[in-house]
Amino acid sequence: MSDGRVVTLGETMGLLAATTVGHLPHVPYMALGIGGAESNVAVALARLGTPVTWLGRVGADSVGDRVVRELTAEGIDVRAVRDAGAPTGLMLKERLPGGAVKVWYYRAGAAGSRLAPADVDVPLVAGARLLHVTGITPALGESAAAAVSYAVDVARSHGVTVSVDVNHRSALWPPERAAPALRDLVARADLVFAGDDEAALVTGGEPTGRTPEELAASLTALGPATAVIKLGAEGALALVDGVAHRRAAVPVQVLDPVGAGDAFVGAYLSELVAGADARRCLDTAALAGALLCTVPGDWEGMPTRAVLDGWTEGRDVVR
Amino acid sequence: MSDGRVVTLGETMGLLAATTVGHLPHVPYMALGIGGAESNVAVALARLGTPVTWLGRVGADSVGDRVVRELTAEGIDVRAVRDAGAPTGLMLKERLPGGAVKVWYYRAGAAGSRLAPADVDVPLVAGARLLHVTGITPALGESAAAAVSYAVDVARSHGVTVSVDVNHRSALWPPERAAPALRDLVARADLVFAGDDEAALVTGGEPTGRTPEELAASLTALGPATAVIKLGAEGALALVDGVAHRRAAVPVQVLDPVGAGDAFVGAYLSELVAGADARRCLDTAALAGALLCTVPGDWEGMPTRAVLDGWTEGRDVVR
Amino acid sequence: MSDGRVVTLGETMGLLAATTVGHLPHVPYMALGIGGAESNVAVALARLGTPVTWLGRVGADSVGDRVVRELTAEGIDVRAVRDAGAPTGLMLKERLPGGAVKVWYYRAGAAGSRLAPADVDVPLVAGARLLHVTGITPALGESAAAAVSYAVDVARSHGVTVSVDVNHRSALWPPERAAPALRDLVARADLVFAGDDEAALVTGGEPTGRTPEELAASLTALGPATAVIKLGAEGALALVDGVAHRRAAVPVQVLDPVGAGDAFVGAYLSELVAGADARRCLDTAALAGALLCTVPGDWEGMPTRAVLDGWTEGRDVVR
Amino acid sequence: MSDGRVVTLGETMGLLAATTVGHLPHVPYMALGIGGAESNVAVALARLGTPVTWLGRVGADSVGDRVVRELTAEGIDVRAVRDAGAPTGLMLKERLPGGAVKVWYYRAGAAGSRLAPADVDVPLVAGARLLHVTGITPALGESAAAAVSYAVDVARSHGVTVSVDVNHRSALWPPERAAPALRDLVARADLVFAGDDEAALVTGGEPTGRTPEELAASLTALGPATAVIKLGAEGALALVDGVAHRRAAVPVQVLDPVGAGDAFVGAYLSELVAGADARRCLDTAALAGALLCTVPGDWEGMPTRAVLDGWTEGRDVVR
Amino acid sequence: MSDGRVVTLGETMGLLAATTVGHLPHVPYMALGIGGAESNVAVALARLGTPVTWLGRVGADSVGDRVVRELTAEGIDVRAVRDAGAPTGLMLKERLPGGAVKVWYYRAGAAGSRLAPADVDVPLVAGARLLHVTGITPALGESAAAAVSYAVDVARSHGVTVSVDVNHRSALWPPERAAPALRDLVARADLVFAGDDEAALVTGGEPTGRTPEELAASLTALGPATAVIKLGAEGALALVDGVAHRRAAVPVQVLDPVGAGDAFVGAYLSELVAGADARRCLDTAALAGALLCTVPGDWEGMPTRAVLDGWTEGRDVVR
Amino acid sequence: MSDGRVVTLGETMGLLAATTVGHLPHVPYMALGIGGAESNVAVALARLGTPVTWLGRVGADSVGDRVVRELTAEGIDVRAVRDAGAPTGLMLKERLPGGAVKVWYYRAGAAGSRLAPADVDVPLVAGARLLHVTGITPALGESAAAAVSYAVDVARSHGVTVSVDVNHRSALWPPERAAPALRDLVARADLVFAGDDEAALVTGGEPTGRTPEELAASLTALGPATAVIKLGAEGALALVDGVAHRRAAVPVQVLDPVGAGDAFVGAYLSELVAGADARRCLDTAALAGALLCTVPGDWEGMPTRAVLDGWTEGRDVVR
Repeated sequence: MSDGRVVTLGETMGLLAATTVGHLPHVPYMALGIGGAESNVAVALARLGTPVTWLGRVGADSVGDRVVRELTAEGIDVRAVRDAGAPTGLMLKERLPGGAVKVWYYRAGAAGSRLAPADVDVPLVAGARLLHVTGITPALGESAAAAVSYAVDVARSHGVTVSVDVNHRSALWPPERAAPALRDLVARADLVFAGDDEAALVTGGEPTGRTPEELAASLTALGPATAVIKLGAEGALALVDGVAHRRAAVPVQVLDPVGAGDAFVGAYLSELVAGADARRCLDTAALAGALLCTVPGDWEGMPTRAVLDGWTEGRDVVR
Repeated sequence: MSDGRVVTLGETMGLLAATTVGHLPHVPYMALGIGGAESNVAVALARLGTPVTWLGRVGADSVGDRVVRELTAEGIDVRAVRDAGAPTGLMLKERLPGGAVKVWYYRAGAAGSRLAPADVDVPLVAGARLLHVTGITPALGESAAAAVSYAVDVARSHGVTVSVDVNHRSALWPPERAAPALRDLVARADLVFAGDDEAALVTGGEPTGRTPEELAASLTALGPATAVIKLGAEGALALVDGVAHRRAAVPVQVLDPVGAGDAFVGAYLSELVAGADARRCLDTAALAGALLCTVPGDWEGMPTRAVLDGWTEGRDVVR
Repeated sequence: MSDGRVVTLGETMGLLAATTVGHLPHVPYMALGIGGAESNVAVALARLGTPVTWLGRVGADSVGDRVVRELTAEGIDVRAVRDAGAPTGLMLKERLPGGAVKVWYYRAGAAGSRLAPADVDVPLVAGARLLHVTGITPALGESAAAAVSYAVDVARSHGVTVSVDVNHRSALWPPERAAPALRDLVARADLVFAGDDEAALVTGGEPTGRTPEELAASLTALGPATAVIKLGAEGALALVDGVAHRRAAVPVQVLDPVGAGDAFVGAYLSELVAGADARRCLDTAALAGALLCTVPGDWEGMPTRAVLDGWTEGRDVVR
Repeated sequence: MSDGRVVTLGETMGLLAATTVGHLPHVPYMALGIGGAESNVAVALARLGTPVTWLGRVGADSVGDRVVRELTAEGIDVRAVRDAGAPTGLMLKERLPGGAVKVWYYRAGAAGSRLAPADVDVPLVAGARLLHVTGITPALGESAAAAVSYAVDVARSHGVTVSVDVNHRSALWPPERAAPALRDLVARADLVFAGDDEAALVTGGEPTGRTPEELAASLTALGPATAVIKLGAEGALALVDGVAHRRAAVPVQVLDPVGAGDAFVGAYLSELVAGADARRCLDTAALAGALLCTVPGDWEGMPTRAVLDGWTEGRDVVR
Repeated sequence: MSDGRVVTLGETMGLLAATTVGHLPHVPYMALGIGGAESNVAVALARLGTPVTWLGRVGADSVGDRVVRELTAEGIDVRAVRDAGAPTGLMLKERLPGGAVKVWYYRAGAAGSRLAPADVDVPLVAGARLLHVTGITPALGESAAAAVSYAVDVARSHGVTVSVDVNHRSALWPPERAAPALRDLVARADLVFAGDDEAALVTGGEPTGRTPEELAASLTALGPATAVIKLGAEGALALVDGVAHRRAAVPVQVLDPVGAGDAFVGAYLSELVAGADARRCLDTAALAGALLCTVPGDWEGMPTRAVLDGWTEGRDVVR
Repeated sequence: MSDGRVVTLGETMGLLAATTVGHLPHVPYMALGIGGAESNVAVALARLGTPVTWLGRVGADSVGDRVVRELTAEGIDVRAVRDAGAPTGLMLKERLPGGAVKVWYYRAGAAGSRLAPADVDVPLVAGARLLHVTGITPALGESAAAAVSYAVDVARSHGVTVSVDVNHRSALWPPERAAPALRDLVARADLVFAGDDEAALVTGGEPTGRTPEELAASLTALGPATAVIKLGAEGALALVDGVAHRRAAVPVQVLDPVGAGDAFVGAYLSELVAGADARRCLDTAALAGALLCTVPGDWEGMPTRAVLDGWTEGRDVVR
């Protein structure tokens, strides 16, 4: 019987983030940490009290030690295969003039891309409350794609809810290769998260001109009962069993927007598996995503339940 | 005869402020400094040229050395009893996701709470132009409460103006215990500063629904001829001998709001003892409080007279 | 025959910028770099692909080594006379409460002020596409003033376009001494850049009350065919052969405004020597100046062509 | 049946370590971390692969969150009672001129001192392979002393090996109060660790003049079958069942000696529970203690098994 | 006709060096820079006044921008092919407990490994005074190996001196694959540098037991007229035309030994092409290598001629 | 009547010290502080409890604010003339490869050099226990030289002990100009401090070959009853009323040697005015100088009396 556990799998990398704004040639120091879409979601779930397992591959190296150490520290059940044949991937975060964030990947051939179906712990997935995967992992290579596909099969055959965040990364694969693969993945999900451009990519047709409601409907037409469209500063929309729920964004001073989508998804899923309705799922997701942006780091600023509650009670300086 | 000196007394602690936003588990470095409401006010006075004495207790330790060193550096006349029996207090400043500041105290049983009536230098207080105390010190314990009470007695019996900043700290005592004590303190003051919530607490009655003018009037009804209501981004109101003066806040980009109230009070008092009218007191106080928020630290950014003057002349980049 | 090269000359100094906002007495660390109006312009030109030579004097010291190293790194052709008889100048950047930047100079008697006519490489200037000078160098002393004057003479006698940025520095000379000298310099230019206050200073008459168009016309009346008025947050205006072109500023979150004018000028000149029309010159200049302000440092944040192009395409987070 | 687990209990605090040498009044930043003798030992055990549980009390605060997070990250089984009635303790590390380390405690009345017998998980202790306690915990107050005593009782009654590190802290209690309490604790242990001064304190008699062998013999005369004397740069001596084993220190460049004793003890215990003989226990302990000193932090530099093995293979630069 | 220029080619990467000693899981910040054996040598040559060209491949990315910028800053003639199809390589430097440096590479498939014979500028190499290559580049892949081989061919056919530093990197290829390839490379050189273990590897036979003289003789037996054995703290030995010159190391306090060999080689070559005898070559090389170790970074601390001269004059504090 | 006060006068500057070893072109951050030989001595005196006044000139700038603030913080009686006509001087500290410290001055024409006889507070000097000056101030220019000379005259005519530290700075004046001026200054002193090279310079004759005793005797032959020769790692020698006292250096790990001589002198003078004999003066001076070197900064690490006493009691880690 399930303990309400969420299982997720994917690649987590070392993350080197510039400590000052500007081109890397002028940055003296990089902050060392870790990051990965699925483990970011796992952190969000753990912070909100949902039992969660992260499954992935890291190298037999010090960066891999750091990945395992940080996720373990969050109270996540870490199932990291140590791969002596490939290094743990890296990403560099550069903050360009004007504020845009540029990410440089060192993940080709890295341990994370060697995730394989045999790494999927079948009883673990079969006994979960929900399996969460993203569209990043299938882009890492055939082995990783097969692992995701196998995990989804296991989940579906055991009646485990399947959640997919489209997360199209154009640096990993071009739209023309990504679109059919992502569409197949979405079709096998119960719940799908997507940005509006991603929804358009997956469902085909015109890239612009459709409303969030239309995009969500196109996604559910592929199979999922629920589609959630993330609209950034415009908030979000959830189409659940044919009913649309709209929610505005929470206005905050954005310091680092990377990871906001993962915080949103993690918070949504935490409420979902706790039995909340769509309204509450969206409210918590919007607040978590907003607060995440006020702290540097892809996941470090994910609020705990106490911070979320404190926010609604008022946000004055406490002394 | 007085040299126009202000005397203040209270606890000053070591202050460890997170150098990055986010939960303390993710903060690698803390900036070390000092802070305390009354000494913050003393800094404001000294920066604006008013002679000021700070009186308090610190431990016979390196943090106590730092307290004495920093306040001496500001040109404050420091009368610090070195207490070998208790450490100098500490506070940790954490910056939560979303921007709120959370302060964790290590002051229970610390040297500052052992301030005693015998530490009060009677001729010093009796010869002062003004005595400033806050509602924090009585919350530290019986000894400290007695010291404040005794200093107020000495001042009143020698015709020295008594100023009180309510400064209710719910982390130190609950409203039900604080209210009567603060009311007694206010009743013996000539001049009182309070936030609107603090004014409501002290004067009793409904916590909300009263205008700043009404709150100020309730305070003066307790005794003081002057009541100043600090309204944060809404500015401030001074009720002086029955006449209300309203003043808007100065719009600035807030980096660290802690200490703004102390800068406001110190600047107000500096103008007051220099003979300024309520309008000028409020103007200088509002500007000082605003500028303080643009610099990290509880008191380091307190403007000098030169900075205040430079501001009114224009705020362009100087080169 | 020219390779489209721009030549500029002036003083470049070591630059120590406070790493935190606030009075220098409370700043623990200063970031070490370099800066100088003319070399800032040279960086802007080099980043946008225009061949550029910077000519100046530095001391035979480590700060001079840094000046040469950083400018060489940018791909600038550096012609630095090493002067064993004087140190390389310094400037300290302090960030006052409220956000204004205060610069303290250590350049009196420094190597840069000893630039002399004999340092001017005549064939280099004679073969350039454009010579750019500023009103700072003549303020450094007689020798430096003579060097600028001589370079302008050489350029004019060989038909090389002369560009002047007025750049009045009141810390170096008072308006009454500066005005006639700057007027003479402007009179010998083909192209002049000025703030509105500088335009008023150079052209005499009332300091306020004239429109940007009127100010530009007054400048061109002194000789130059083109006058560009920099209006900060109000944008800019170019009067070219009698036709006025107006351009709004690009809205960005300003982190450090120092150097924005230099980025503006460098970008304008880069487009100009590439044959662009006034509209495009202004557009690129406005965008470069704005983006520069979003990065700490006087020139480090100058955008490359790639960043400029990326901006117009959209400024979302890239991942 | 035991899984070879070591159980330890005690206080773990937030630790603020000066980032530069010198008096705290001149230190701008403190590195934030955690530390505590027993959890330092637990880290050493975990790094070397021994299952270990740490049991203690922390406050319901962010420093407590950090304690739990860091120990969890190390793979330690953390049983932290969250105490809403007291803060997590703190310590400040100052590095005096000349190199000595001065530690300032903020642990009086802190959560760690409120550890109580009821917090002791009887089946956990009863099922352990070894219980490790130190002479620090009894010094924290009656409740903590009772908890240690109870845990030792439980261990002894279930045949679990009891290890004691004397760890006399004169800042917590004076020798005259400490000596009898520590003697009682040692008398109930199977294995005791002590510095030579501590051995003299516990066994009474002259503070100096006895050889390590004599001190060890005095300790075993109190009850324990094994006594290990830590001699710092002079190495260590283990008296096991009447046979003395001497071991020299490993020469390294010492950066931060704090925690070396804990690394020594943890490594010794890890080898002991793995069945190693005294010679190997001492060798591993000496190397672990030495390497710990080459890294800043009380426990962060504790070597893994891989580092220990790498050391014996050679210590050249790897590239 | 040659200007006495040295040409070198190889891979230069982004370099992220831990700012604190200890395992990467405990390191908060990494210093960003660049490094590569051949460009380190080029820096040494440029600092000592020898004209030098570095030829290599970097990605079309910000790390590649940094490589080009830093080497250009040193006055090196940079011929960097920008490869849009692969990223610039990275390396992470970790400082283990005990002091050993561990380097983690992210260079598999990176731009540097795609260096190709077509990238070799034939007239440049043919006109050089000396070509310097290392045993690292052939280990990067077939294309890079072919490029080195081709450059050596060009040099030999034009009478250009060929210098080889063996630089065996076991992380890139195992001894059994490296040995024959390195032997072939050495056989085509005029001058070879090797550690004693590398000399043993290249010449075969027993790994230990041979004297430096014997090792050098074995190397020259393969072809080169000169062999220099680097012995670290034991100094160095040069066998030149059959005559052995021995030189002790310069004793310094080692802060970061990485790059010392490159400084040694660069200084040796600088003296060599200036016509110095073996004694002077060794003296300068030994001093440069020693001083490099006293500064953090693989090449930043390479002394200039002025520092070298200052050292021989005395090393007291200058004020 | 004197309160045992020492009076000193001279220039104190802003001090920017490189935070990392290496050439300034590679140093990202400089630590901001202050320094000056005479105020360093004043700090030493104040830390050891001797009343001390420092008299000097600083600019009306933020660096001047810092000078005043830091010295005031130390409990020194600061008599700083604020000079609106010149900036406060600066110095940059660079740490060269190999460990030597290079100081770059920006003090020509600075406020400190404008110290004038009229700035000398005659009653202050006349009432002092001892006047301390150095050979640096006369090198700053005629005005400063006259001020020193006048202060010495005042002291001598009132029977105040005159102490001189030769402190020859070759960067300020060449030996041929310095020697006669320094000789005149020494001739008017009661007590002189000098390095062996300085003693040789002042007394003329061969620069080397004389023993410390001979050098001291040559100095006392000029007039002073006491001469102290500072010999760095070789310790020191005091010749007092014809009796020589030799003292070895205290061995410590040197981190930053700058300021050690000033700590030595300040400690010597503190003991002297307290009535100690030459032996104790030398002991305290040697220990203070040694401990100062273990902390970064010219004066920050000056030990207090408590640290000195703690040292003799033992230097183990305190916990």
